[in-house]
Amino acid sequence: MQREHRLPTRREVLHAIGMIGGASVLYNAMEALGHASETQFAGPPNLQGARPGTRIVVLGAGLAGMLAAHELTKAGYVVEILEYNNRPGGRNWSLRGGDTYTELGGETQKVGYAPGNFLNPGPWRIPYHHRTLLHYCKAFGVALEPFIQLNHQALVHNSKAFGGKPQRYRELAADWDGNVAELLGKAIDNKGLDTAMGAEDRDKLKVALREWGLLDKDMRYVRGIKSSRRRGFERAAGGGVLGEPIPSDPLPFKDVLDSRIWGTISQHMTMDHQTAMFQPVGGMDMIGKAFARQITGKITYGAKVTKIDQSGGVTVTWTDVTTGTEKTTKADYCVCTIPLGILSQIEVDASPEMLSAIAAVPYSNSVKVGLEMRSRFWEEEEAIYGGISFTDRPISMISYPSGGLHSSGPGVILGAYTFGPASYKFAAMSPEERIKTALEMGSVFHPGRYKEEFSNGASVAWSRVPFTLGCCARWNEDTRKTHYQKLVSVENRLVLAGEHASYIGCWMEGALLSSLDAITRLHKRALEA
Amino acid sequence: MQREHRLPTRREVLHAIGMIGGASVLYNAMEALGHASETQFAGPPNLQGARPGTRIVVLGAGLAGMLAAHELTKAGYVVEILEYNNRPGGRNWSLRGGDTYTELGGETQKVGYAPGNFLNPGPWRIPYHHRTLLHYCKAFGVALEPFIQLNHQALVHNSKAFGGKPQRYRELAADWDGNVAELLGKAIDNKGLDTAMGAEDRDKLKVALREWGLLDKDMRYVRGIKSSRRRGFERAAGGGVLGEPIPSDPLPFKDVLDSRIWGTISQHMTMDHQTAMFQPVGGMDMIGKAFARQITGKITYGAKVTKIDQSGGVTVTWTDVTTGTEKTTKADYCVCTIPLGILSQIEVDASPEMLSAIAAVPYSNSVKVGLEMRSRFWEEEEAIYGGISFTDRPISMISYPSGGLHSSGPGVILGAYTFGPASYKFAAMSPEERIKTALEMGSVFHPGRYKEEFSNGASVAWSRVPFTLGCCARWNEDTRKTHYQKLVSVENRLVLAGEHASYIGCWMEGALLSSLDAITRLHKRALEA
Repeated sequence: MQREHRLPTRREVLHAIGMIGGASVLYNAMEALGHASETQFAGPPNLQGARPGTRIVVLGAGLAGMLAAHELTKAGYVVEILEYNNRPGGRNWSLRGGDTYTELGGETQKVGYAPGNFLNPGPWRIPYHHRTLLHYCKAFGVALEPFIQLNHQALVHNSKAFGGKPQRYRELAADWDGNVAELLGKAIDNKGLDTAMGAEDRDKLKVALREWGLLDKDMRYVRGIKSSRRRGFERAAGGGVLGEPIPSDPLPFKDVLDSRIWGTISQHMTMDHQTAMFQPVGGMDMIGKAFARQITGKITYGAKVTKIDQSGGVTVTWTDVTTGTEKTTKADYCVCTIPLGILSQIEVDASPEMLSAIAAVPYSNSVKVGLEMRSRFWEEEEAIYGGISFTDRPISMISYPSGGLHSSGPGVILGAYTFGPASYKFAAMSPEERIKTALEMGSVFHPGRYKEEFSNGASVAWSRVPFTLGCCARWNEDTRKTHYQKLVSVENRLVLAGEHASYIGCWMEGALLSSLDAITRLHKRALEA
Repeated sequence: MQREHRLPTRREVLHAIGMIGGASVLYNAMEALGHASETQFAGPPNLQGARPGTRIVVLGAGLAGMLAAHELTKAGYVVEILEYNNRPGGRNWSLRGGDTYTELGGETQKVGYAPGNFLNPGPWRIPYHHRTLLHYCKAFGVALEPFIQLNHQALVHNSKAFGGKPQRYRELAADWDGNVAELLGKAIDNKGLDTAMGAEDRDKLKVALREWGLLDKDMRYVRGIKSSRRRGFERAAGGGVLGEPIPSDPLPFKDVLDSRIWGTISQHMTMDHQTAMFQPVGGMDMIGKAFARQITGKITYGAKVTKIDQSGGVTVTWTDVTTGTEKTTKADYCVCTIPLGILSQIEVDASPEMLSAIAAVPYSNSVKVGLEMRSRFWEEEEAIYGGISFTDRPISMISYPSGGLHSSGPGVILGAYTFGPASYKFAAMSPEERIKTALEMGSVFHPGRYKEEFSNGASVAWSRVPFTLGCCARWNEDTRKTHYQKLVSVENRLVLAGEHASYIGCWMEGALLSSLDAITRLHKRALEA
């Protein structure tokens, strides 16, 4: 079968519309095409007609800055990036064996992981609907592999349930659904829904609950083949003489409630954690490196920006970190992707409203600890491949590597990913104490193996990271209302970009979409000037 | 940190116990070690001390037969396999471009897929708890990659709901949970659970339902940021000026009920479909090929068994398919893995009870259709990476390839996987009609793209597969009770093995566990003889 006429793809149609009508027409078209629900990305921007010789300085070689540089260069601008670190990527970062990292406070860690192993201190997973990031990964040749988020075989630990003994996710989730189904069935029989639904729908619902919750014919969630097919058997099915499986007993619902499994189930269902998710093969920084390859020669590393002036063009003053020399870079426009906690300490020539906005948004302060284990005992012995075991202790979770599944040899477990007050506590510890604490708390999941198989570890406390002073921007309803539109506006010759200038905070996708929006508006401003 | 003393692993302990105490002691030990719930596999068998020169003939070079040959050879037996096909693997099979396949009825298909593409007509996914298969894949060097089963972005089609328009799984699943939570909350307020639970637990449950179901503070499942974070937004969050997301409206619960999404959710939660799942990189037959490499030179291909005699040793009569010559193979024992539908047509020297057992079990008759598409439009345009879209039409589903994610070029969609009556209908069609029908029914998910991007297809109707006459054994409670133990017993010098001789029917794991159990008992018999 040969195809003689080919219909244009939706992407092609959108691209054509974008070229003719600009962003808002494009967005309406996207909606009409049913494309709007998972992304605002409609393909790379089509910026054309830059005035020859127009110079743009980009501050920060994270993903937002590098994408801006790449697309503005394509549009015809002369672009230069100033970057504080001696590597591209910013928070898109992987710590590997041989790496040295010094945090604020002076503690230096030399990472001891085996070759090929790493910790991603910042972003570590990519949802399927982060279309901008996935587009550029494909365009720039970044190999991706599935990131396993939900793992039914992983464990859930709540110190207030089951005497502190972790349970399998699959058992808790099955028993949650089963009990909810049984209870709703009972409530229907007790006329608890007579005012809410008609009789026909109540009957339909009961049929649905029976199948969804794996209830028996009497609408009870009980020990049996049916429930065990989901929660697991006491003796699994096998072959030959002893092949017949033995069902398992559901857990007491009181304990299931106390385990707060409903929160874990709920989290797995959010779009940011739904299937499919991805990670770059070989470490998250493969993305930053690939972006940097697109703009070879445009990044000046070890450049600490101290001042942004807009009088008569843009003048950026910066210190060469290696020599201590003060230097200046002049340009016609500036795209600034410096995180707000750093930017608020820099002299910026902007309106009081913009400066207020920059100062208004606090940053989260998560801590991550990566523990290298000598063997992948969780795979061989526990049948856990990737995914996360959750706990109510300060480490909040341990995550098993999604890369190198089924391989032998050492693997790095994310041994802590702290939030809120736990992060202050972990950030206050020395790197050695963080590892010791993570091992102690994580061993609840794998007693007798976790500490025993441990080889070496590394940690990053984001509040102590010199180039960000925090993990990512924490907007709230008030700050959004008061400051967001000002923060993202083009002011004179300056526009900000980064995850902090988006509604997809703390994700690479937010940084990229912010960047595309910022440079599209800056380009318009430059053409109108 | 150096480890001076190493604890034995559970696997090592189990292995040691198995060597001393045999299978039942081993099983008790597994249970004590908390190992029993996901598998009956405790490592490869430790068969030792075969009498020198003892010959075993294995019938069938599927996974059960090849594993038997491998382990029996290790134990010291002289092993030979007779195989009807001209390739190893049996139902572990991949059809590739250039392959030719002739089904019963005479229809021959020449497969036209692009290099690297394939259809797995038989097994296509491996659950994490299939420890035997995963063990041997690792031992034999079969590269595995995640198989994506559940995909929240995939579609669910029910011709009786939403006017026949497919909906995203994420929207239906979110709305199901949300409505169930809201209804149960209402029922609690209406005193529908007053007799079932105490007041304190009812309050706890309401808190749980609010978080699990993403209800608002008044316990309602409504349009808003909260529900949209799970079901998706009308306008997704973005960066810059238009960054703020616009929430979406939940679907009418009446339609959600009619979509039968509860059945789809339920299926995804069963152990056989839980995360993590795997597939071999490059096609399921990589497993069969790897098994065959372990027993090089032991397989005689093109051997059609016609008679198994047990008087004075085992004599197997077979026809050389190529030349038509009748031949015999003599041995001391026989492991027969021939599917029951074929075996029941062979003259087998066994008890009437065994022959009844062989004749008692019907086979399922699924049909699979693999449609090669010129581009991976479902990834680029719809953000669907792997997973399954479900329908109530006879094709039952379409499944997007889990291999080669994010690559360009043609990909093979599983365009039909039929069950029950639909299989008879599809098997009765010509291969061309099957493809035409699959395209017609599957295009409901991707109108304007599905038929348009189609390039070529192949299909396998298992009832027409010459070497099995069906897909896999369909036991029921009665046949299990009457025939199972007889079927798996060692009778004189003969033992049967395969998925049909297990409680993990239709899965490779069942074939392997059956094989290990069968050869362990046969070995014991041989030592006692």
